[in-house]
Amino acid sequence: MTSNLDPAIAARLKRSPDGLVPAIAQQYDTGEVLMLGWMDDEALHRTLTTGRCTYWSRSRQEYWVKGDTSGHVQHVKSVALDCDADTLLVRVDQVGAACHTGARTCFDADVLPLGE
Amino acid sequence: MTSNLDPAIAARLKRSPDGLVPAIAQQYDTGEVLMLGWMDDEALHRTLTTGRCTYWSRSRQEYWVKGDTSGHVQHVKSVALDCDADTLLVRVDQVGAACHTGARTCFDADVLPLGE
Repeated sequence: MTSNLDPAIAARLKRSPDGLVPAIAQQYDTGEVLMLGWMDDEALHRTLTTGRCTYWSRSRQEYWVKGDTSGHVQHVKSVALDCDADTLLVRVDQVGAACHTGARTCFDADVLPLGE
Repeated sequence: MTSNLDPAIAARLKRSPDGLVPAIAQQYDTGEVLMLGWMDDEALHRTLTTGRCTYWSRSRQEYWVKGDTSGHVQHVKSVALDCDADTLLVRVDQVGAACHTGARTCFDADVLPLGE
């Protein structure tokens, strides 16, 4: 779809074949990595301009303003693009649980064993 | 290629169409998000069993043990899979700079402007 993203940013962004960029959401003060979502140009534009994290849902194929259903809003503090311009780091203030399971982060439950 | 990854983990892993999973590298003690790389089953197996972060380089189409060229090794502290089993969070002890530019993290240089 047409996006309102700043053309200077859009020109630099390197997207996957389906037009998306992974976005890491991190709690701005504690440093916790909360989740990873995906953004297209318009989701990034909305994230930069509305103060609320907006993702593209690959499963539902629609925009998804984090917290609109759950109340678990992500207030945007800063957005950075990495050195290859193919990954975003979004520092947020997460209200409540980031994970749909009710866990604080999406990485709390499934720690893999190290070693042989 | 054939992988030695534990079949119980391999059965749960949800991969992109090119067989990869994004892996977020985080400094284990400070919480800094250092970089995002990609792992296939074998890279994950090596990361879990060798104590050194190993990625699949999409540009070079080869395994890449972080720090083998630069000395900027990532010692693995823990590996967690997210609630959807499609993203990895690898907590590491990063030696030196994580970014090939010499910056501590890949997200230090390019902060995007917020607002309209």
